[in-house]
Parts: sequence; structure tokens; C-alpha cells
Amino acid sequence: MYVIIVYDTEHDNCVKLHKQLKKYLFWNQNSVFEGTVTVAQYAKIKHILEETRAENSHITFYSIENEKFLCREEQGSAKGNISNIL
Amino acid sequence: MYVIIVYDTEHDNCVKLHKQLKKYLFWNQNSVFEGTVTVAQYAKIKHILEETRAENSHITFYSIENEKFLCREEQGSAKGNISNIL
Repeated sequence: MYVIIVYDTEHDNCVKLHKQLKKYLFWNQNSVFEGTVTVAQYAKIKHILEETRAENSHITFYSIENEKFLCREEQGSAKGNISNIL
Repeated sequence: MYVIIVYDTEHDNCVKLHKQLKKYLFWNQNSVFEGTVTVAQYAKIKHILEETRAENSHITFYSIENEKFLCREEQGSAKGNISNIL
């Protein structure tokens, strides 16, 4: 499954979430990770983030079972390491 | 079609992009908009953003033809006005 995770939190917590997410997903831009994971990995990521995120944070998880249903386009130059994967 | 737009740009440009995007989509969190649009509206949004965005900015467009293929989950309290739409 393909997942996109976006988060909104205070700076220090941003660093923690970034550290966890880069183990599983590609960093697209500030507070945006994406990539292909298994169902089990996805459950683990959500559990880790629930444990790691700050109280006033907000995280949105988008998942698409089959990547063929997702169209991805970009404008401008990517900071992240993502542009070659989809 | 359902679209998710995330952008990474300098502050002043962020304000401009936000102003344009809120005409068509829901604001989820900082630099993240989403919602249902027509193909024509989506083309218009991409054109407007190409004209409006700063040179060193980066925008990623995710689109899914049918919302039923997208699963959306949240952790924490949303700042935006999105939680009731999917």
C-alpha cells in the first residue's frame, strides 16, 4: 500500500517524528513523508507516531491500497529524496 | 476526483498560495490542502499555483480519481476544517 503522512507539531517534536518516519518512508518536504509499506509496517508506524507525537500535534494519514490509483505530480525543485519512486 | 496538495515555500509565498487554494479546497494543516474537485478545477488550480508560487518553492499534487480508493485517518486535534468531509 502507498501512504502519505503529513504532520503539524512543535519544532522539537518535528525532529522526533522525522527520525522515526525516515526509517520507513521517503521524506518529500517539511512534515511530509510518503512511500510503499506493508499493512503491518503501516500499523507499526501509526503506533510509533501515537507514542511519539506531542499532545497538541496533528497527523493525517492517507493510504491507497494500490499505487495505480494515485497520480502524483510536482512543481518546483524537490528538497526531499522522492521524485524517482512513483 | 480527490486531491491533496502540499507545498514548501517561503512565508510570504505561503500566504499567497493559501489564499488561492482556500477558494477550492479545505485547509487541513500548514501547507496542506485537500478536497474534491473536477478535472477542470484541478487544471485551473495547478495553473494558478504555477503562476503564484515562488521560484524556490516545491509543490506536490496527489490525485485519486475515486475517493473510495483513499483511506484517511488522523491523530490529534485538527487545526483545519477538514475532519468531516471523507
